[in-house]
Amino acid sequence: MSETAHVREVGPRDGIQMVKTMLTTERKLAWCRGAAAAGIGEIEVTSFVPPKVIAQFADAEEVARGALTIGGFRPSVLVPNLKGAERAFALGLPQVNYVLSASEAHNLANVRRGTEESLVDFGRIAALRDQRSGPRIALASGIATAFGCTISGAVDEGRVVEIARRLVDMGADEIIVADTVGYGDPGQVRRLLKAVIAAVGRVRVSCHFHDTRGLGLANVTAALETGVRTFDASLAGLGGCPFAPGATGNIDTEDTVFLLEQLGFDTGVDLDRLIALRREVESWLPGERFSGAIARAGLPKTYRHARAA
Amino acid sequence: MSETAHVREVGPRDGIQMVKTMLTTERKLAWCRGAAAAGIGEIEVTSFVPPKVIAQFADAEEVARGALTIGGFRPSVLVPNLKGAERAFALGLPQVNYVLSASEAHNLANVRRGTEESLVDFGRIAALRDQRSGPRIALASGIATAFGCTISGAVDEGRVVEIARRLVDMGADEIIVADTVGYGDPGQVRRLLKAVIAAVGRVRVSCHFHDTRGLGLANVTAALETGVRTFDASLAGLGGCPFAPGATGNIDTEDTVFLLEQLGFDTGVDLDRLIALRREVESWLPGERFSGAIARAGLPKTYRHARAA
Repeated sequence: MSETAHVREVGPRDGIQMVKTMLTTERKLAWCRGAAAAGIGEIEVTSFVPPKVIAQFADAEEVARGALTIGGFRPSVLVPNLKGAERAFALGLPQVNYVLSASEAHNLANVRRGTEESLVDFGRIAALRDQRSGPRIALASGIATAFGCTISGAVDEGRVVEIARRLVDMGADEIIVADTVGYGDPGQVRRLLKAVIAAVGRVRVSCHFHDTRGLGLANVTAALETGVRTFDASLAGLGGCPFAPGATGNIDTEDTVFLLEQLGFDTGVDLDRLIALRREVESWLPGERFSGAIARAGLPKTYRHARAA
Repeated sequence: MSETAHVREVGPRDGIQMVKTMLTTERKLAWCRGAAAAGIGEIEVTSFVPPKVIAQFADAEEVARGALTIGGFRPSVLVPNLKGAERAFALGLPQVNYVLSASEAHNLANVRRGTEESLVDFGRIAALRDQRSGPRIALASGIATAFGCTISGAVDEGRVVEIARRLVDMGADEIIVADTVGYGDPGQVRRLLKAVIAAVGRVRVSCHFHDTRGLGLANVTAALETGVRTFDASLAGLGGCPFAPGATGNIDTEDTVFLLEQLGFDTGVDLDRLIALRREVESWLPGERFSGAIARAGLPKTYRHARAA
């Protein structure tokens, strides 16, 4: 029996927040349906930012509602504040992903308030979650710019650990350590993830890497060594943060699955089906830059799905 | 004091063996001069294959002679057989790099004989080297397709270790473990490099990775953990093997230097000068596909040369 590792598809959220084409709700749901059919177990399906901030997510409610009817995967949504969380809670989603930035400057640019204010807001969201009746909603929080910031430069590792601890103390069920701008390297990943896991041990710690400077998959490899088993990724390597110049490119979902399977982890994903879905998504987004090596070079002759090994 | 790591530029050899443009001797030497000025300490400057096999290397003698006059770096050349080695020895190069394949099928395709015959030929080359008067010439041997083969699939790790041991027994001063077709993953790299180093401990063991399937820099990170400190790489990620379909792309020199420096290794390389050289090389090779993230995204604000740290 292989150990399991999880790839969370964030393409319908992070992947499309900067693309030129407005995807229809139906295509966003087809993306979710296709990824689930290929074996992806978690998908961040949309973002509950105000529609006037990112028009691509004006149909967030419809996408979330539609995603809930597909089945076979755990849908989550991104929320930047209490208002977004209220909208997400109302729909009965099983998981809601909050985000704040370790870098004060990035937090100000991204959500127009300081990191401490964002932490206080998370406390309100967690309290609201706890007051609700019905099935418990899992609350994750991303810590953006955890490895450095394009605006302010270096980010203190102790500050990231402190933020993680406070989020968990307030009720976070998962900490998503995010290299929003692609500054992290494998040494930094090993150090920071070890420290975060030691500080918040009992909750899931996952990673959200961008491949901006080519180290995305090296960073996944390093994070695996610290015990991380869940990684955000985007089909065709789409993605980027509107307030982090040069941040383009989440790690590519297909390549991440390939790496994990090669290392003997069972991702549950059928790479051929995933690559077919990628081709479809590419056809919907004319003029975008797609990345990822497996879709170009093909699987090695020696490739075997870990589950089959 | 940071620990040192070495990047050997193989662009003027592996990088250009499949490009459409015939580079002039002067440009090949400008490439060497530029890389040396940026701090690259070793360059594989050309290949002593028969000119009728790869026309790009018809000027191999001139390039090698010219490279010897530049200074500031250690030039080496690739030789596929005794005839090539004789030509290289005659020029007084400090290092000659032989190559054979662990995969019998790849060796047959690449040098038209079996791996055992190539091993016997290496013995003759080493004997010829030992008979020569004058400064001792370092003899390296690459083991191509060490992580698998596009023609025959899996390659036995024990066979690679055995070949490495026999090469060293016959006089090899360096073993270059090569993922010619981009099949290797970090787990395999850790296992195989540990085994090779244990078998041939006293000689230098280096790695030659291709980024065909996106794992090039993850593989560098894994190899570093086993003690490897020398990596072949090609400016702009150029490269590929004519007999290994889909093999395009050595790991990118700039990105490899970036990774090593981020991990605290002193490469001695000035990345800004290296990127300037890359732009020049790109302008010489119209219509080629260039890769590499740092040249596109720029260095992080937090980047510091390890020597300055």
